[in-house]
Amino acid sequence: MRRPVEEDHPRVLAVLDEWWGGFGGAAGSRERALLLPRLFLEHFADTSTVVEDAGGRLVAFLVGFLSPARPATAYVHFLGVDQAVRRAGLGRELHARFLSAAAQRGAREVRCVTSPGNAASIAFHTRVGFRVEPGDLVVDGVPVHADHDGPGLHRVVFSRPVPGDPALRGAGAPGGRSPSGP
Amino acid sequence: MRRPVEEDHPRVLAVLDEWWGGFGGAAGSRERALLLPRLFLEHFADTSTVVEDAGGRLVAFLVGFLSPARPATAYVHFLGVDQAVRRAGLGRELHARFLSAAAQRGAREVRCVTSPGNAASIAFHTRVGFRVEPGDLVVDGVPVHADHDGPGLHRVVFSRPVPGDPALRGAGAPGGRSPSGP
Repeated sequence: MRRPVEEDHPRVLAVLDEWWGGFGGAAGSRERALLLPRLFLEHFADTSTVVEDAGGRLVAFLVGFLSPARPATAYVHFLGVDQAVRRAGLGRELHARFLSAAAQRGAREVRCVTSPGNAASIAFHTRVGFRVEPGDLVVDGVPVHADHDGPGLHRVVFSRPVPGDPALRGAGAPGGRSPSGP
Repeated sequence: MRRPVEEDHPRVLAVLDEWWGGFGGAAGSRERALLLPRLFLEHFADTSTVVEDAGGRLVAFLVGFLSPARPATAYVHFLGVDQAVRRAGLGRELHARFLSAAAQRGAREVRCVTSPGNAASIAFHTRVGFRVEPGDLVVDGVPVHADHDGPGLHRVVFSRPVPGDPALRGAGAPGGRSPSGP
């Protein structure tokens, strides 16, 4: 597990179709590649992670950042896990590490989006602690933000609270559950 | 001239094809839309700008951010100016304001990319002070980074130094042109 370097960019792009199970066909493939231009690995490496196996093969990655405009928010732009190592807790661990980094930097919530109809992704995010935000459309029983990323680019929007620092709760810090501490 | 709000996102997407003169045809259109998901207006609003005319019509925008992983670098992801108001200095002013904000936050260079073959964009960036970085391919006489954003997604890469703070130059700050000040 390490921070990505720029040279990881083509390696990450090369696994998207397989790891996403070809979701969305040719259009889905193009969409994924265009959503991950090199800038994400260049400029958000400090809050992103790649995971390799003992042989140096890429098996998972998370690309995320702290929002400069919304300091209370951290955002996970992409999370991918090789289908061959799913259900081993790698995705959960990457999210837990990101959550911890977000907490250290003062964020209060982590947000991310996925495509409507990507049942595996929606189930995964729900399982690891995200909740689906209300939407203005329902697709396969899931609330969706219509045209979120552009015409026809609907998204399921997730959020997850960042646990407050227990040491601060007693001081009545925002988000403390009790004025007298836990 | 103001900071963008999330509601500007569909307005910005709606002008891309016209302002880019349909560059790249249908594939170019899809590419531009996917390169500007809502997250850029949500999370980088503090370093981005939209410009409206007296009637509230969008006439220009710049989306940029300071690189968290490379604190010496600021990055302009998108700059658009309505063809009807080109050559009036709006693009130059948006870049100048971004450069100034980057300088205040300690950045030493501004970077951006454009598509090979987009002669208007390449000429504009050169005119306002960017230089083309060396590449590994030449397209229409311009150095290009092959596969920069993915297979087939070549890019012309630009950079521009951020002028150092004159007050610091005398102190021998990095980038000072003279140890005794300007």
